[in-house]
Amino acid sequence: MSPVDAARPQLKIRQIHLDTGRENVAVISRHSKALRPEVFSGFSRVEIRRGNQSMLATLLITDDNAMVGPDDLGLAEPAFRRFGEAAGSLVSVTPASPPASLDAVRGKIQGRTLTAPEIEAIVNDLARYRYSDMEIAAFLIGAARFMTSDELLALVSAMASVGTQLRWDRPVVVDKHCIGGIPGNRTSMVLVPIVAAHGLTIPKTSSRAITSPAGTADTMEVLARVDVGVPEMKEIVAACNGCLIWGGHVNLSPADDILISVERPLCLDTREQMVASIMSKKLAAGSTHLLVDLPLGPSAKVISPIDAMRLRKLFEFVGDHFGIAVETITTDGRQPIGNGIGPVLEAQDVMAVLGNDPKAPADLREKSLRLAGHLLEYDPNLRGGSGYARARELLESGAALKQMQKIIDNQGPTNCRKDLGTLTTDIVAPRDGVVTGIDNLQLNRLARTAGAPIDKGAGIKLFKKVGDRVEQGEPLYRIYAFDPSEQELAVSAAEESSGYTVDGVHAFREQVL
Amino acid sequence: MSPVDAARPQLKIRQIHLDTGRENVAVISRHSKALRPEVFSGFSRVEIRRGNQSMLATLLITDDNAMVGPDDLGLAEPAFRRFGEAAGSLVSVTPASPPASLDAVRGKIQGRTLTAPEIEAIVNDLARYRYSDMEIAAFLIGAARFMTSDELLALVSAMASVGTQLRWDRPVVVDKHCIGGIPGNRTSMVLVPIVAAHGLTIPKTSSRAITSPAGTADTMEVLARVDVGVPEMKEIVAACNGCLIWGGHVNLSPADDILISVERPLCLDTREQMVASIMSKKLAAGSTHLLVDLPLGPSAKVISPIDAMRLRKLFEFVGDHFGIAVETITTDGRQPIGNGIGPVLEAQDVMAVLGNDPKAPADLREKSLRLAGHLLEYDPNLRGGSGYARARELLESGAALKQMQKIIDNQGPTNCRKDLGTLTTDIVAPRDGVVTGIDNLQLNRLARTAGAPIDKGAGIKLFKKVGDRVEQGEPLYRIYAFDPSEQELAVSAAEESSGYTVDGVHAFREQVL
Repeated sequence: MSPVDAARPQLKIRQIHLDTGRENVAVISRHSKALRPEVFSGFSRVEIRRGNQSMLATLLITDDNAMVGPDDLGLAEPAFRRFGEAAGSLVSVTPASPPASLDAVRGKIQGRTLTAPEIEAIVNDLARYRYSDMEIAAFLIGAARFMTSDELLALVSAMASVGTQLRWDRPVVVDKHCIGGIPGNRTSMVLVPIVAAHGLTIPKTSSRAITSPAGTADTMEVLARVDVGVPEMKEIVAACNGCLIWGGHVNLSPADDILISVERPLCLDTREQMVASIMSKKLAAGSTHLLVDLPLGPSAKVISPIDAMRLRKLFEFVGDHFGIAVETITTDGRQPIGNGIGPVLEAQDVMAVLGNDPKAPADLREKSLRLAGHLLEYDPNLRGGSGYARARELLESGAALKQMQKIIDNQGPTNCRKDLGTLTTDIVAPRDGVVTGIDNLQLNRLARTAGAPIDKGAGIKLFKKVGDRVEQGEPLYRIYAFDPSEQELAVSAAEESSGYTVDGVHAFREQVL
Repeated sequence: MSPVDAARPQLKIRQIHLDTGRENVAVISRHSKALRPEVFSGFSRVEIRRGNQSMLATLLITDDNAMVGPDDLGLAEPAFRRFGEAAGSLVSVTPASPPASLDAVRGKIQGRTLTAPEIEAIVNDLARYRYSDMEIAAFLIGAARFMTSDELLALVSAMASVGTQLRWDRPVVVDKHCIGGIPGNRTSMVLVPIVAAHGLTIPKTSSRAITSPAGTADTMEVLARVDVGVPEMKEIVAACNGCLIWGGHVNLSPADDILISVERPLCLDTREQMVASIMSKKLAAGSTHLLVDLPLGPSAKVISPIDAMRLRKLFEFVGDHFGIAVETITTDGRQPIGNGIGPVLEAQDVMAVLGNDPKAPADLREKSLRLAGHLLEYDPNLRGGSGYARARELLESGAALKQMQKIIDNQGPTNCRKDLGTLTTDIVAPRDGVVTGIDNLQLNRLARTAGAPIDKGAGIKLFKKVGDRVEQGEPLYRIYAFDPSEQELAVSAAEESSGYTVDGVHAFREQVL
């Protein structure tokens, strides 16, 4: 501790039970003994120090002595946890200059190309929570306008280097990733057991929902535990050739999680950021072969074949540089895949496909087989062109279902509720005709509003898909909820805009989520 | 109230004594009776409604029943004040889509040129606090890369239309504005009484410091009240031809204040935003003739003559469009103007100049006379070229001092303390030599750290300026403070980097504030 720290009045930290998301927030009394908070307001942030421990935080001021007294410094929830010192510990607080790497962010905003060390410094500061939300937004928006090839490679490399780096003792480690945006679409949960049953290694880590009604990790959690750490993950993969766990617990590319949490509310989803996000995670995960699913449709993330081609080139470019064999596949993204939206409903679809149930959704089955077929072709010992047939064989023989049960057993039991929402409402067709469109964004929003993924059994079950004939008053889909007010919110939103177009009537909503 | 609102559980609002700056923040219990907060986390913000009253806010979650109970909705300080309903009032809370105008912001980020109605919608949402801090940053950064001439005009027009619009019953209403960044530099307080004594109308509104140690309003407040509303402002101008008041109380271009509060911590200060900020205020203020002071120097906002010329062209272009006669003047911005930095010290400099004190700082006197001379030339009855001589005559005769006293009397007495900081420390020259540079940014930061402008008497008094010879150990400047810990912070920062270069030694700090 420097002599300056010793002389300056210190403050006792206390925890403020306020969840401020990713941002570090500290609360100081307007009558603080250490420093008058108004003096700080000219500086963007403060630095909190104890010994060698240092943290940057955004400062809020309170007049409420019960919240934070004149001798205290309140730390909101993530900041208190990250600082890691006991309540009552003495700390010093000083005005902080912004992180030095923010100069490079300003350069990017002004149109400058950044060097690899500059990008590394930005990613390191991001991962250490040294950026405020506004500063994270500044980097994302600055980079959204243009990013050179070299910048993109530097970003992927820096992001992959921060956090866990998985390495596998096998020559072929396959992975599949969808760029997202399509409700349902739980192909990973079908293809991982198929590929693992064949004998290829597929250690799948997935995300939880951020703004959608379910991520693969949320849906898998209906069937098994997904909060699995690295050593246990290795054991599961050794036993089963594959796994279906939550990536957050493994801490792959944590800077990516921070960037995504700001990207989503701002609806910033550029090609370069999408590629950097996915490729940094795969590089850290030790994948050797990657298949990227690019759904194409009017309410998908990719809306034109030209966009899909540009994305493909970018994935290939980055994959080649880092020695990952990347293949992209353009799929039908005009509507949800499967019938369920929300963890329990989606898990039912998955188990129906794996169980060869004749009522299982054909689109989920067919798409999963197609993707699994591609992945199986990465097996050097499989005869070229026979991947799809092999995938179907593994599914129809029950080998895939058996492998799924083995994965579930190895990951261990979940303590999630598996019952469906008890409050149901059917949304019906406004006229006779043919379903000509389904808005992915609106259905995601409705299912989320109904309580998914927090309530595993909340969500939407589709009765009609594009091309189906409907009669006026016939149900299009059913909303499941547990909470009456969430049910009501979802139903009134569905009545305002059902997300379905019948005979071309009922336009897509332009802006959702 | 819609039937939906009536059925949904409502929450009682309560005030949370937490100052969250410009952003609306609401706090909900993790065990809320109305809606589970996790459901909201997929949406960027919430809408709070009571009858026709509606407000968007960012939502934080608490586990602390003492802060917000399950039946309550906490509103942090600015949100509670803006919502304007009594504590205990029942409100409904729903997930909110981002403001529709945010689509245009995303378009701007992607490189699209915005239409005038789009820019109007953005400015209206900004002024109604419907943007989160991140969304404000998104607009600023999107616009920082490029802005067309038409976009700039639309922005100025939209910003000027929101808030108060002053109109004066006189053919010539003059104004002067400095783009800022130079410590001291209180020329307005010298030239307003000169110009008003001559008989020209100069209703000057000024800002308070945001990140600097003093704005003109902070310094004027040492001498007179500055929180003056529109009707009283008109009376003062009728009596004195001019005034020196705080613009914030008059509510000119409030969207500008919101943009600036995000620009400053991000250090985003583009030409277009600077011109939009200043010109929207002047358009709203009803100025007919405007003189813009552009200080030029290595630590000023304008660092090259080419930048100064580009700024001049932009000011002229916007001025011509809106019928304001704009003239720019490039001034010496290599160092602070005057000797004092901080409200009391600056007010002493100003009164010394107006009182023709032989010890008054010559640079402040000379610069003020030069600017006043330009402004006086806007009087059609004054012989061309005689502005400077007329200004000097009004200063030397004591007419300007008399006019200043009249303005002070009309604005009324202040209740600010006028004593200088009792804790003083001299920062001395590290070697013999000549002062070759003074870093404006570092001196601003030091004076702010010492307590200015919150303590009117805190700040810095300069003993040496550029070109002065100094001996080792001779004081360069004196730091004034009231608070021991702020004194210590300022002194240790000055010891790390004094801001002075002697014989070319001691580099400018690259990044300050």
